[in-house]
Formats: sequence, structure tokens, C-alpha cells
Amino acid sequence: MSLLTVGSVAFDAIETPFGKTDKIIGGAGTYIALSSSYYTNDQKIVSVVGDDFPQATLDDLKSRGVDIEGIQIKQGEKTFFWSGKYHNDMNSRDTLATELNVLENFDPIVPESYQGVEFVMLGNLAPAVQRQVIERLSTRPKLIAMDTMNFWMDIAWDDLMETVKMVDVLIINDEEARQMSGEYSLVTAAKKIMGMGPKYLIIKKGEHGALLFDHDSVFHAPALPLESVFDPTGAGDTFAGGFIGYLAKSGDISFENMKSAVVAGSAMASFCVEKFGTEALMNLTQADIDRRINQFVKLTDFNMETVI
Amino acid sequence: MSLLTVGSVAFDAIETPFGKTDKIIGGAGTYIALSSSYYTNDQKIVSVVGDDFPQATLDDLKSRGVDIEGIQIKQGEKTFFWSGKYHNDMNSRDTLATELNVLENFDPIVPESYQGVEFVMLGNLAPAVQRQVIERLSTRPKLIAMDTMNFWMDIAWDDLMETVKMVDVLIINDEEARQMSGEYSLVTAAKKIMGMGPKYLIIKKGEHGALLFDHDSVFHAPALPLESVFDPTGAGDTFAGGFIGYLAKSGDISFENMKSAVVAGSAMASFCVEKFGTEALMNLTQADIDRRINQFVKLTDFNMETVI
Repeated sequence: MSLLTVGSVAFDAIETPFGKTDKIIGGAGTYIALSSSYYTNDQKIVSVVGDDFPQATLDDLKSRGVDIEGIQIKQGEKTFFWSGKYHNDMNSRDTLATELNVLENFDPIVPESYQGVEFVMLGNLAPAVQRQVIERLSTRPKLIAMDTMNFWMDIAWDDLMETVKMVDVLIINDEEARQMSGEYSLVTAAKKIMGMGPKYLIIKKGEHGALLFDHDSVFHAPALPLESVFDPTGAGDTFAGGFIGYLAKSGDISFENMKSAVVAGSAMASFCVEKFGTEALMNLTQADIDRRINQFVKLTDFNMETVI
Repeated sequence: MSLLTVGSVAFDAIETPFGKTDKIIGGAGTYIALSSSYYTNDQKIVSVVGDDFPQATLDDLKSRGVDIEGIQIKQGEKTFFWSGKYHNDMNSRDTLATELNVLENFDPIVPESYQGVEFVMLGNLAPAVQRQVIERLSTRPKLIAMDTMNFWMDIAWDDLMETVKMVDVLIINDEEARQMSGEYSLVTAAKKIMGMGPKYLIIKKGEHGALLFDHDSVFHAPALPLESVFDPTGAGDTFAGGFIGYLAKSGDISFENMKSAVVAGSAMASFCVEKFGTEALMNLTQADIDRRINQFVKLTDFNMETVI
């Protein structure tokens, strides 16, 4: 089924203990679309870039089956830029620069040809912008998933509350879940957050995996234990892309299938962190992905019937 | 098959954000034996207490099928005492008091009737004492598992290296694995640590679950997401007790069965943290344990055959 991704298409400059990049391609929308393109080629994107953004990258997205009609190219303006430096443990980072540029007054345009889209993934953006996209869809999609971050909890709480009411799945990390709920226990936090609107909540825990909640159940997918994490940038977006892509491919939004989608997202994220930026997502094969999924199956499979 | 637990039988005083205890029963040996008693009643313990230790507790262990002939009662001496205070996040704690008392010169006696034991769980103690127990066994057990802590890495590294060479399974937490290996990645850490002797390594990650490694494979068991963690004291020992008890009950030391044993240990640990001290381990039923195991099955079960 068709998928719409909304999110930044941007430049990043990244420093990790393993090296440093110049300006490279980044942005939540880019990571989501690249990741989900391995599951569906019926996808569209809403975003905005400046006239400094390489046409080759847009063409590349197109060649992966992403309809880019909804990417506005603002003449005389610059693309969103983020720069950050990871600490030695790779679990925390300092932001060195955030230049909003074209995102500052982003008015998302939903092309007429996008109407009727069935799955929507709202990447991290101002909650008011995310809401605008939903409001500009003439029919309610089958499933809307949304990412956000603590920044919006700090400065746009009311907007955030209005937007989360409109989505089916919220995807945030453990720290954000704790801030959003004011609860330390993730189980209690999940209950409170689902009380704010979303029927499903995914709490990402980085190297510790991810939890999927609905009102009755919880599912845990581990992260793949890796020898080296090269660059965590985009891992959360790549997870979201794998998750929504898997759902869109199957069209099945049952909790059972969402569990598989969480594993699909975790597998895609495990590739992402193995190289700088989007590099690891550029040339995966179906066999690579199948092998990775099998590693998750082996990692979590056990059989307790022998004794209990 | 028969199981020998070696570890402290002691007093604790615990303070958490939820409350504070007087001197209560604690000790690694106590937690391990209580936990494993739900899987096997063919078990023995080697430990030492002072004459201040309640006979009723020793009788209680006996009533659970634990042979206590190997617990020395030192007249005129006091039992080991530990006191600690947990921080608000329950993930870190300050030690308020450690009174070694009878543990200071602990010379572990292995009664003749214990000889021929098939499974051994060495709770956290000085590595030289752990080794003495192994050396005092006339036949090599089928499986020896061992816990340790960063304290011994700091002050008794050579002893620790000598002892880990003699065991099959080492059980430590993530912080200890990083310290022991000097590696941040747990995968790299695991390889280095298995290079020090043990064929299997379990890395406990508290609320994030546990990893089981051998040279070729890795398995991940999550911790059960809980609404409230009341008191983490003894959770690691309770995990070890469930793990070794499950193995001893089945007699099967394949990697496949160790995976189930890790889940059994995780289930027991999930009970432990729900009440103060050993309280939650006193009156479990088989039905309680079965239900908890089923929660782990549901928590981790997914089926990827639909799309991939």
C-alpha cells in the first residue's frame, strides 16, 4: 500500500570517535525514505530543500521509487543543516550547529497526486507542521505514525498534544518517553502516553532495543549486538522507515504484524549505524536484509517447553 | 541433577525510594539457593554465618530441599552485613556499610556428602575462595558457573584470572564486562572475556535484559518491563539461581537449553525486584512461575514469515 513520508531532507556534518565527515546528506525524511524503500516502492515524500541541495540525491530517491513531487526546492534559500559530535560511548552527543534555513517557515505542500495515501510516517518536525500535513490529506490514512523529540516537549507542548491525538503510533526514545510522561518506569510512561491519544507506542532504547506497546500487550525487540557502532546518526529514522515500510508492504496493521515491523525496523537500523551517514543504506540487497532478520530470529528464539 | 551453591548467607539493610528495611536476610548464596529451589530440590550450599544468624532461616532453606551441612556457624563471630541506598532511578546505589565479619577469613568446607555434585554456582566471593571450593571437589562437575564483581577486578585480578580459567560460565553485568575487557562494545568484550577461559558468558544488563554468548552465537533475553521496581537487591543472584537451577533440573548444558535457562533466570529476577529483599522468593507457586515464563514468551515472540 502507498506510503507518505514527511521529514527533513538535509545536510549533516558528523564527528564520532571513528572519524569526521564534511557536509553529507542527512535528514529524517531521507533516512526514513531510504529505509522504507527496501520494503515498498509505492512511496511519496513531503519535504523542503534549498537550491544548494544536489539534484543527484533527489534523482537517487526517485530511482528508488520515491515520488519527490512533494519536495519543495526553495530558490535563494539554504537547506537545513545539522552538525554534531558523539562522545566516546556513542550514546550521547553534542549539537555543534543547527541551521534551520528552509525549515524555518516550512509550509508543507501535499500534491494532489498524493491524496488517498494509506500509510503516513511523520518524521521529527515541529508538531504544528506534522499536523498541517494530516489536515491537508483529504481522506484519513489507514495508519499514521509519528516521531518527535524532547525539544518540542520543551517549546511546543500544546501543539504536540494536539498532534499526538491525531496519530495511531508514536515513536520516541526512552528519555523522551520519560520526559513526556513524567514517569521513570517505561510501563507506566507508556500507559500515560497512550492516554494522550496514540493507540500504539514504540519506545526506542538504542543499543537496548525497542518496546512496542498497545493497551493490553508489550513486545520487546533487541538491538543486534554489534562489534562497532560507527555512527548512530539516523538510526531512529531508519528504524521508523523499516517499521512503516514493512507495514505498508503487508497492509496489515494488527499488533502481531507490528511486532514483525519493529524487528524489520531494528534490522534496518542495525545496518545504518555500521557506516557514516546514509552510506550503509545505499546498496543493500534483499539477501543482506534476510540474513539480518535471521540474526534477529536466532538472537531471540528460545523454547521453554522442555522443562516448564 | 545435584547442584552446589557457594555464596554469602548474610544480613542486608536496604533503603530505596519506596522505603527502608531493618536488618533483613540477604546474601548471594541465599538468593541463589532460594531461586534455584524452585527448579531443583537436590541442592547443597557452602557458606558461613555467625552465631547471630537466625536458625529459623537455615531451617527454612532446609525445608526447601537445600542441604545446609556446608554452612559453617562461627561461634562468637558475626554474620556478613551489607547496607546500601538506591538512588531514585534504582539503577545505581551507594554502599553505606560493609562488615565482612565471618567472610574475612572464610575457609570454605566442602562436606564429604557433597562430593560428586554435578552443577556448581559460585556466587560473588573472593576469587581465591571460589577457586578453593573447585579444588576441594574430588571430581570435576559437569558445569561450573561463576559470578564476580568489579571490586575483585580492582584488588584481586591475578586470582580472578586463575579462577575464571576453571569455570564454564561467567555471569557478570555490562559495566563489569567493560571493565574486565577494557572494551566498550559488549560483543568485543565478550570475545576477550571468553578468551580468558570461560566457554560461555552471560552479560546482565539490569532492566535491559541479559545476553548469553558462546564462541559462535549470541542470545538476548529481555527483562520483563515492570511498572515498579521496588528493590533491585539480589536480582543478579536470583537470576543466577534460576539459570543454574533450570540447567540442573534438565541436566542439559547445550547452548539451546542455556537460552531457556537465561529466560528462567530472568523470570525469577523479575519476581525478586517486586518486593524488598528475599520476600518475593518465599512463596511462589509453579503456576506463578509458568505465568511469568509465558509473559517472556509473549514479550519476545514474533513471526517474520509473512513478508520476508
